[in-house]
Amino acid sequence: MTTPTLHLASESADLQRSIMRELLTLAVDPKIISLAGGLPASSLMPLAEVRLCLDEVLETEGARALQYSPPYEPLRQWIVEWMARRGVTCTLDEVSITSGAQQGLAILSRLLLDRGDPAVIEAVTFTGVQQVTAGRGAQVRTIPTDLTTGADMEALEEALSREPRPRLIILIPDFHNPLGVSLTAEKRRRAAGLAMAYGVPLIEDDPYSALRFEGEAVTPIKAYDEAGLVFYVGSFSKLIAPALRLGWIVAPAALADRITVLRESLDLESSGLIQRAVHRFVSQGMLEPHLEQLNRANRQRRDALLAELEAHFGEDAHWTRPEGGLFVWMTLAPDVDTWDRFRPALDRRVAYIPGAAFAVVGGARNALRLNFSNVGPERMGEAVGRLAQALRAG
Amino acid sequence: MTTPTLHLASESADLQRSIMRELLTLAVDPKIISLAGGLPASSLMPLAEVRLCLDEVLETEGARALQYSPPYEPLRQWIVEWMARRGVTCTLDEVSITSGAQQGLAILSRLLLDRGDPAVIEAVTFTGVQQVTAGRGAQVRTIPTDLTTGADMEALEEALSREPRPRLIILIPDFHNPLGVSLTAEKRRRAAGLAMAYGVPLIEDDPYSALRFEGEAVTPIKAYDEAGLVFYVGSFSKLIAPALRLGWIVAPAALADRITVLRESLDLESSGLIQRAVHRFVSQGMLEPHLEQLNRANRQRRDALLAELEAHFGEDAHWTRPEGGLFVWMTLAPDVDTWDRFRPALDRRVAYIPGAAFAVVGGARNALRLNFSNVGPERMGEAVGRLAQALRAG
Repeated sequence: MTTPTLHLASESADLQRSIMRELLTLAVDPKIISLAGGLPASSLMPLAEVRLCLDEVLETEGARALQYSPPYEPLRQWIVEWMARRGVTCTLDEVSITSGAQQGLAILSRLLLDRGDPAVIEAVTFTGVQQVTAGRGAQVRTIPTDLTTGADMEALEEALSREPRPRLIILIPDFHNPLGVSLTAEKRRRAAGLAMAYGVPLIEDDPYSALRFEGEAVTPIKAYDEAGLVFYVGSFSKLIAPALRLGWIVAPAALADRITVLRESLDLESSGLIQRAVHRFVSQGMLEPHLEQLNRANRQRRDALLAELEAHFGEDAHWTRPEGGLFVWMTLAPDVDTWDRFRPALDRRVAYIPGAAFAVVGGARNALRLNFSNVGPERMGEAVGRLAQALRAG
Repeated sequence: MTTPTLHLASESADLQRSIMRELLTLAVDPKIISLAGGLPASSLMPLAEVRLCLDEVLETEGARALQYSPPYEPLRQWIVEWMARRGVTCTLDEVSITSGAQQGLAILSRLLLDRGDPAVIEAVTFTGVQQVTAGRGAQVRTIPTDLTTGADMEALEEALSREPRPRLIILIPDFHNPLGVSLTAEKRRRAAGLAMAYGVPLIEDDPYSALRFEGEAVTPIKAYDEAGLVFYVGSFSKLIAPALRLGWIVAPAALADRITVLRESLDLESSGLIQRAVHRFVSQGMLEPHLEQLNRANRQRRDALLAELEAHFGEDAHWTRPEGGLFVWMTLAPDVDTWDRFRPALDRRVAYIPGAAFAVVGGARNALRLNFSNVGPERMGEAVGRLAQALRAG
């Protein structure tokens, strides 16, 4: 069989194969200590609870839980309460269920961006954010992110004030992927204010804020939104487990119908079984003790990573000090190329993600992302020792 | 809070709220006998088996089944074998996992259609097919479907020969939704031949072919594809259960990478837990006895429906006689408007979907879709009795 040269649509042609995903596939050897993934630790997942919830839903609800079903209202109601606890007042009508945060980004980018529209994203950001703008063929304007206070609001205003007016802003406020930094409260207020002043919608991508193990919670940008311009994206992937493929959007009620229609065109709906099981999990009080245990472990792991970085790199590098989430961002001397050092690191059985994988318009070649949540504290010394060898061997 | 008038992107603006979905939400009163849905019968679902498979996966694989994970290779391998049994030779590299058939359609339409490109679909077809072309702003060329032999191949050739050349064809070969008809073997060969002759990719949307309860299986269009132009879309929703949200695409290996990247941009991946549970289900021999039982029941239900239609409508209407699947399409006298009769039917506590809901460019107002799989044979007389009253009362 010969495959003719098919005309591929621009959306497909514009998407780059994710460098991060490529690198992750290289790091699956179990002898490799991986600081590369974005994974919550398997050993800390609430396996028994999820198993129980799934089984109880099937026992009590029977085949109804296996049928097609509309978004599960008790779960949406719980999300309203969860958002309220975090300082965001919203109504049931404003909550849409998604299959994870990435689908939230994909739906909202299709709602708000026409092909080739300008959009503002951070210059170093999660590859999934890059994919949804690339898939729209967006003219991307990037803004820098300060490693202690988060995205640069002066740069955001500058990007918004240029014509043509951007159609979308995407920010990651808490425990930024890959930078680990959180946007300050003042900057959040300012971000919402800029969205309103320029009439430009802003997606707040927040898979991580409940993973705070230190410091005070910072209210989401959405809380400052007085014009229905901030679209909040949440996820159960890091709160409970990625394989649930469940998340949510908080958006103006007037747009809920458009979001539903877009979502149906993409994949109809989320699993009624999983929605019911997750609702059982959160409504029976399983989430809080799980998060407490998870965050305690993550704090230990972050502490172990930072201590080992100090011991092995000292003055030769600097790194962020996240108060939660999964990631530390490390910056080395300008002549260290973390991209070139990736293979030698694998040879030494340690993996990370080179900074360049997250750099929208280049740069960050002397930086790297380290995931601390998936390596036990007892192995952190070995991990960072190998890392130091690999990065210095060049 | 005031919601400003946001600029909505064309993709969102072009999508119509599904009329079918609207109608279904009106028909949820349990006193209504619904011939409206596209649901497999809950009472026939393999509840105990799915429950066992989920539980065993979590027991044997533990938290690994809750993690992020690449497409589950044993399931893809099983799909290769399943396709081979149906007459389609493909390799592992050609199989991509999706979250159901709708996502298959959504991914492939984004792979193959640029905004405004011409596409060929049937004039009466599944609303999900209409949504993926509408979402691309496609210039739709419709072809009629013969109620005993399937889509009109002369019309297809005519549509393909006009400039600009269409970029995509979508057909539903088996137990068509909503028409119930199957494309003959000869027409399938011709459809593949036309795709090859004109170099136009063809999506074969096949959620139903394993639901055959009468007659001989007809080989998929994909089997005649010698140029990598036929894209096969399958689903576990009707084979096992919709809430699994699992399906697949068979496409040329050279495009697998593009399909993966597109899919990742939409929602990363399908649940590793569900993929493992479905693989357990199919590899432990649970699928065949389930399908046997399901098809036996569906045949009874179809027989009951056809007998009642004959008894209540006789010469006043005609209808298709499906050899499988879920749907019968019924056509009444030209002056009966099934759209106008929908509310009176609900008042009489019976529901159906008016033909107009499936008509891409209008028409079919004297037709309707009847789902026989979700009504027990003992209630079919009552259901059709109410239907006859409602349709005649106009």
